[in-house]
Amino acid sequence: MSLTVVGSIAFDSVRTPFGERERMLGGAAVHFSLAASFFTEVRPVGPVGEDFGPGEFAVLEKRGVLVDDIERVPGGESFFWRGRYEYDLNVAHTEDTRLGVFGEFEPKLSDASKSADTLFLANIQPDLQRQVRGQCRAARFSALDSMNLWIETTKDSLLAAIGEVDCVILNDAEIRQLTGESNLARGARALMGRGPRAVVAKQGEYGAALFTESGFFALPGFPLEDVRDPTGAGDSFAGGFLGYLDGLESEPDDAGLRRAMGYGTVLASFNVEEFGTERVTRLTREEIDERFEALREMTQFDVSPAAAD
Amino acid sequence: MSLTVVGSIAFDSVRTPFGERERMLGGAAVHFSLAASFFTEVRPVGPVGEDFGPGEFAVLEKRGVLVDDIERVPGGESFFWRGRYEYDLNVAHTEDTRLGVFGEFEPKLSDASKSADTLFLANIQPDLQRQVRGQCRAARFSALDSMNLWIETTKDSLLAAIGEVDCVILNDAEIRQLTGESNLARGARALMGRGPRAVVAKQGEYGAALFTESGFFALPGFPLEDVRDPTGAGDSFAGGFLGYLDGLESEPDDAGLRRAMGYGTVLASFNVEEFGTERVTRLTREEIDERFEALREMTQFDVSPAAAD
Repeated sequence: MSLTVVGSIAFDSVRTPFGERERMLGGAAVHFSLAASFFTEVRPVGPVGEDFGPGEFAVLEKRGVLVDDIERVPGGESFFWRGRYEYDLNVAHTEDTRLGVFGEFEPKLSDASKSADTLFLANIQPDLQRQVRGQCRAARFSALDSMNLWIETTKDSLLAAIGEVDCVILNDAEIRQLTGESNLARGARALMGRGPRAVVAKQGEYGAALFTESGFFALPGFPLEDVRDPTGAGDSFAGGFLGYLDGLESEPDDAGLRRAMGYGTVLASFNVEEFGTERVTRLTREEIDERFEALREMTQFDVSPAAAD
Repeated sequence: MSLTVVGSIAFDSVRTPFGERERMLGGAAVHFSLAASFFTEVRPVGPVGEDFGPGEFAVLEKRGVLVDDIERVPGGESFFWRGRYEYDLNVAHTEDTRLGVFGEFEPKLSDASKSADTLFLANIQPDLQRQVRGQCRAARFSALDSMNLWIETTKDSLLAAIGEVDCVILNDAEIRQLTGESNLARGARALMGRGPRAVVAKQGEYGAALFTESGFFALPGFPLEDVRDPTGAGDSFAGGFLGYLDGLESEPDDAGLRRAMGYGTVLASFNVEEFGTERVTRLTREEIDERFEALREMTQFDVSPAAAD
């Protein structure tokens, strides 16, 4: 089994009420890859600049991430994001974005990346997502993320890209904006009408909901008393979700998708406990499984007192 | 078993993107009582005016609600609320509030009301809540709701009232505002530190979370494609929650509280499907149990593929 992700590889400078960090390793493909690395072989595809050095590569390699398709552009600068969060950690305030080498990104996939069983198109321009999707013909399960910018500027391209994947992973506000449906269930159904068999609505601290042909499933966010930096939570969710699915022996069924929601929730929860990749880089599979079981325990209930005995 | 609720009994005029109604039967104690009536004997305590007629009493009596403690004030006018909702149904815009007889409400409880096993102090002035709490000494389980107005104007009284109940049922934003904790888990813990053994955080369409000594439990809102009028959702939740608990043979344990969360969620979901009390007045216990089971199915997942077989 193998998983390819295309998306940003970046440096993030982040300030929250609980601290700040300069130029941490970040970006969608990084958070995704680290989360997925606990379940399967993952190859991030994306460009970096000369400022991306052995130390950054080492963080990924230490987790077994295959870095061959990270393209180091001579003379270039890596994508850089600076942002801050107030006490409402659900809202990121962007202070600076420098695309650097990401501005002229033309995805180049190795044969290994192209033959992945699972594909994640992180939040990049939708035409690029389609281009990558077209190259990865072998994928048995593919998913994409996006953002308000593409909904506003290249909506038709985004809808075309959605028509080519099995699963859409978006914030609930983005699903509403994209479909024009104030009701989330209707919005999810409208997206499924375009092709995908599953829609995941990320809901920040409230967790995530899964819509499929056969029904609805939802999980709360894992309750944490200390959330220090929410950057990368959504991509860590996607990494846990798709990483788990890629590790399955057969195509994911509904029960598999539900468990994947659980692993996504768990990886996102670890990610936000500390800044950047700090927590996930020293995470263990044992800790993941422990929290997965705790999450399960937090969401189960019996039909009747008798059944509880 | 018997349940007493003290709170508003009102007429509501409501406009949403899906329709409008003038002077519907409403108010916290009404929505609560109708929801709880599927599980136990419930007595609403509160004042109404001369405009409150046999038609309104009949709606309650048809569901077996005991109306003896509804005080009809000669020459008075019932509490009246006019509000509207935009497409974001989570936010109510108040256009008019007339307290009427509710402005000089002095709770008078009959002996039957005083001896209730379960007590719900709906959103009224906290000193009145304490006064009622003091009269209902036999209650094995008591809960209260409140609102931003009391947090801002009579916070100390509200905290004193919280210290006298077993359970607090508030919106998550209210818990944050009241405790000054941006983190919900910390806020809930702070409230439990004042006495209550359970804190329920209502989260609108995202569902509700339960904090107790022994842990955390959460349920999503029941997914609905048609939500027409969210007025009374929180009180219907409380009615399903406390109605179920009152019907139990023994004091509620954690498993009972979890099932009660399920019944609260189910009653709230029926309430919002139509305007005012329209849906709940023709609801059946069979429909409730069916949706409860559907909700359970939507939140369960297995630990491993093997466990699913």
